[in-house]
Amino acid sequence: MSENLLQNINNPSDLKKLGTSQLPQLAKELRDFIIDVVSVKEGHLGASLGVIELTIALHYVFDTPNDLLVWDVGHQAYGHKILTERKENFHTNRQLGGISGFPKRSESIYDTFGVGHSSTSISAALGMAIASQLKGENKHHIAVIGDASIASGMAFEGLNHAGVTDANLLVILNDNAIGIDPSVGALKNYLTSVKEGKNPKQNNMIKSLNFDYSGPIDGHDFKALISELERLKKVKGPKFLHIITTKGKGLQQAEEDQVKYHAPGKFDKNTGEIHPKSEENLPPKFQDVFGLTLVELATNNPKIIGITPAMPSGSSLKFMMDAFPERAFDVGIAEQHAVTLAAGMATQGMVVFCNIYSTFLQRAYDQVIHDVALQNLPVIFCLDRAGLVGEDGATHHGVFDLAYLRCIPNMIIYAPKDEIDLRNILFTASLGLNHPIAIRYPRGRGKYSNSKFQISNSKFERIEMGKAHLLKSGTKIAVLSTGFIGNNVSFALDKISNTDAIAHYDFGFVKPLDENLLHEIFNSFESIITIEDGVIKGGFGSAIIEFASENNYKNSIKTLGIPDNFIEHGTVEELQQMCKIDVKSLEKLFSTI
Amino acid sequence: MSENLLQNINNPSDLKKLGTSQLPQLAKELRDFIIDVVSVKEGHLGASLGVIELTIALHYVFDTPNDLLVWDVGHQAYGHKILTERKENFHTNRQLGGISGFPKRSESIYDTFGVGHSSTSISAALGMAIASQLKGENKHHIAVIGDASIASGMAFEGLNHAGVTDANLLVILNDNAIGIDPSVGALKNYLTSVKEGKNPKQNNMIKSLNFDYSGPIDGHDFKALISELERLKKVKGPKFLHIITTKGKGLQQAEEDQVKYHAPGKFDKNTGEIHPKSEENLPPKFQDVFGLTLVELATNNPKIIGITPAMPSGSSLKFMMDAFPERAFDVGIAEQHAVTLAAGMATQGMVVFCNIYSTFLQRAYDQVIHDVALQNLPVIFCLDRAGLVGEDGATHHGVFDLAYLRCIPNMIIYAPKDEIDLRNILFTASLGLNHPIAIRYPRGRGKYSNSKFQISNSKFERIEMGKAHLLKSGTKIAVLSTGFIGNNVSFALDKISNTDAIAHYDFGFVKPLDENLLHEIFNSFESIITIEDGVIKGGFGSAIIEFASENNYKNSIKTLGIPDNFIEHGTVEELQQMCKIDVKSLEKLFSTI
Repeated sequence: MSENLLQNINNPSDLKKLGTSQLPQLAKELRDFIIDVVSVKEGHLGASLGVIELTIALHYVFDTPNDLLVWDVGHQAYGHKILTERKENFHTNRQLGGISGFPKRSESIYDTFGVGHSSTSISAALGMAIASQLKGENKHHIAVIGDASIASGMAFEGLNHAGVTDANLLVILNDNAIGIDPSVGALKNYLTSVKEGKNPKQNNMIKSLNFDYSGPIDGHDFKALISELERLKKVKGPKFLHIITTKGKGLQQAEEDQVKYHAPGKFDKNTGEIHPKSEENLPPKFQDVFGLTLVELATNNPKIIGITPAMPSGSSLKFMMDAFPERAFDVGIAEQHAVTLAAGMATQGMVVFCNIYSTFLQRAYDQVIHDVALQNLPVIFCLDRAGLVGEDGATHHGVFDLAYLRCIPNMIIYAPKDEIDLRNILFTASLGLNHPIAIRYPRGRGKYSNSKFQISNSKFERIEMGKAHLLKSGTKIAVLSTGFIGNNVSFALDKISNTDAIAHYDFGFVKPLDENLLHEIFNSFESIITIEDGVIKGGFGSAIIEFASENNYKNSIKTLGIPDNFIEHGTVEELQQMCKIDVKSLEKLFSTI
Repeated sequence: MSENLLQNINNPSDLKKLGTSQLPQLAKELRDFIIDVVSVKEGHLGASLGVIELTIALHYVFDTPNDLLVWDVGHQAYGHKILTERKENFHTNRQLGGISGFPKRSESIYDTFGVGHSSTSISAALGMAIASQLKGENKHHIAVIGDASIASGMAFEGLNHAGVTDANLLVILNDNAIGIDPSVGALKNYLTSVKEGKNPKQNNMIKSLNFDYSGPIDGHDFKALISELERLKKVKGPKFLHIITTKGKGLQQAEEDQVKYHAPGKFDKNTGEIHPKSEENLPPKFQDVFGLTLVELATNNPKIIGITPAMPSGSSLKFMMDAFPERAFDVGIAEQHAVTLAAGMATQGMVVFCNIYSTFLQRAYDQVIHDVALQNLPVIFCLDRAGLVGEDGATHHGVFDLAYLRCIPNMIIYAPKDEIDLRNILFTASLGLNHPIAIRYPRGRGKYSNSKFQISNSKFERIEMGKAHLLKSGTKIAVLSTGFIGNNVSFALDKISNTDAIAHYDFGFVKPLDENLLHEIFNSFESIITIEDGVIKGGFGSAIIEFASENNYKNSIKTLGIPDNFIEHGTVEELQQMCKIDVKSLEKLFSTI
């Protein structure tokens, strides 16, 4: 075995000292390094393994950070981080205070653009390229984008603009036929036919958009990659390189089960085996409650439809895709389309469950307002991963939804306090509400161990619209919580001695508010505390304050939630602590009452 | 002259009684009818004139309303409205209580989907087509979309999904090479080359997406249209028909100046001449203040860039496009791309003014959060047509912006109370704020007649960040207004007798709030009234209430603004009256104090 090359490489200058013949060895070492760390520390795996050769080749051929490299989404950027001065810190990946799981401007000069949500790279890199042109700077600008991300409308908008500029932009399509789940759509089929040589070169969609197209080439072949990148360096204007890679490359299991090894959790770095987690007696995941309940409802109602934009596994809509493939749709990374598709179906009387992560519904905000709420179509939005999501960090927290949805007329907004309420609101919504509803619930597990709550066995109960509930009575202060974070309140109340002073109410409905109960509360308690795992500005607490002001109540109101700054990555508990909405902080607060 | 055909046609059943040879006469009558009414009542003209033959052919060939027809945007749907039971009411178009200027579900069974914003038709019609398929209903589903709208990302998402379904969907591309302004982008160039026969049929982008493509055909040729639509009725799966039309067809001036005749205002129905409006001594338009000031600033700062998504005329960015074409970008209907392009440019130190109508910024909400605010890039958003826009109605009011922007960390939000403040905030922002800023201003004219305020002659003054101002002192009640609506307060105060009681403050900055002044106000006045031309829930008033609650002030606060329902079309004054924020309502309110 020759000497370890990676140990001497801290940045691209070090990399450039290697001869091309040494690059395959470096690729192996870089893969091993990533596998070593991720197998223990967890994180995204498959995407980075797939672009190791590309990552090395890009930093080898181009003059980063002077040349500007934008990674789309950024799941695939671990190799990039390790080669750009973050090898020593890579073990802190996704931990509080550690490096981010995504490229991030404030972390490194090599991270030219913060990413996390997909399909932004072409627009961002084009903006940089135009800026360089105006400044008379001779730089290269490279966007690396996957085949799932390029099918999103925003990427098309970027290509459509770039094609009429003479900006020095290179778009590299990293085509591995998969995002987090396998890619879908007509463009994917087209790309597949190109790969298979079925499409004559002259019928080239990318060329139609005025790009200099080359490829497809093998993205694991250093010789091909480097010679093509060197050639493209000299080509002026917008260029497009199509490369074929294998997600998970170099770890057999990751190549074979690309969905599971996207972010596999802890695994054996030698065998690749994922360490089994004991799931016995753990509460069910909200995702599975959604997925399995939907199947159950759909069994009894042929009008029920499920839609996900590219998250069948993450959302557990896959259960319905398996059970009722004709009524469950993965539309790819296309949130805008997903929402308006749902609206179109709803006009024809279908009962549409449109499952979108809270942070990604931001992508379809106008469609929620203009196509659904304005027409008062009863689309059922299931906002998965609402609230703090933990290690994915600032780009992925679903903390704005209550604020940005609450201002929309006709919307019902509901946050179940546990998995039973989720199940029952899904049932209730399926019966028809005559309004759109947004149901927001967190990533991860509920609170009832399996013995107490069997998803498919528990009886449905209809949830009364707009009704809030007393969970615990008290004499002095009323705590109003919405959603799963309310359990932190319950746990904290269990731990304190002055528990008699504090009443606790669950406001599942953020809109409409239970005004009758609110009048009762404001007339009975001097002080009110609201708590939510969303932004304070404009959120649930703000709604309560608005109610008080409208009705001229003078009670003091304290609003707990996410403060007015972006929350970074860490465990959910750590982040809750930062926001003072964790159990301990609440316990402390309640103790002083 | 033969008898008038249109007078006997109230719906498509009547239309179907005509022979095909009579259709050209009907087309002429329909054009004349539209011209007669729009010349007097105003409204959108060119788009509808361009699709008269298509409109007639669609209702002639298909079985509407059983077959489902979706018009993208809807500017072009006047002929459709007239042929579908709204001929008698067409003179009420865009007036309060009258028919909407856009297709609207609640107005007619023939309006299958409410539109206004672009590029929704393919997704909506696909949703309907899938629903029909699931219900076993044998219907046709048709989306009519223009070449400007199809270049938007959302339309691509719809095509990308449709191409892998076997849904009975017909997409008709109405290619007239213009939206409101001439179309732009690589796709437009591609479509032009197709029209000119320069692209061999096998190199077909639409075919790449698995559509059955036909065309291009002449969209004013009834014979060609009808025979092709009849043929397509029998083709299964997703189909695409490319037709070529002339916007403004049948009115010479409208054909020749398509931008001006998109919505020409009142004109002579015989000569086509637009009635000149006396603009002497009228205050300047906010749009021109934006456009001309930007040119002035850009003259002195080579880093200044302007971006508009398809609204160069409407926003007046055209001034900069003329003066500095290399630094002013019309990116087409691509709000998502526009915002992230701006972010990319800002990373390279450019000073980017991204001008987007308030209602359309909803299309790029995630990009504002994820690509701009999270990275704290100092992009300058100019939100044109903020507040109530009048006759365009519910789809176009820019009333949500304060609520949906206020919850985003790092954002500065400013609403100038007049055109001088707009000019000065543009200047101030150009100097660098280290934060993104959203500057929101209304459609239409400011308040200073030209003699008092010459856009390019007035001296720039730097606006102090976060500072609010006393406009008029008072003893009892403080009125806090934000933006141009504050002038209604001033006018109302001028009219009442008890003026001493009421103080008036201008809060240009909705974020950050001038907390020092707020403390002073809350300590000096018993009661506070807030006023904004945005939604009350989560808006400026809500911010003031949050401040009061945080600081334990017990003053009574009344919030005026847009209530929690969608506001329809009418004049701005009529709509303000509905919301009780017009001068008279304020006068009445103030009189009771």
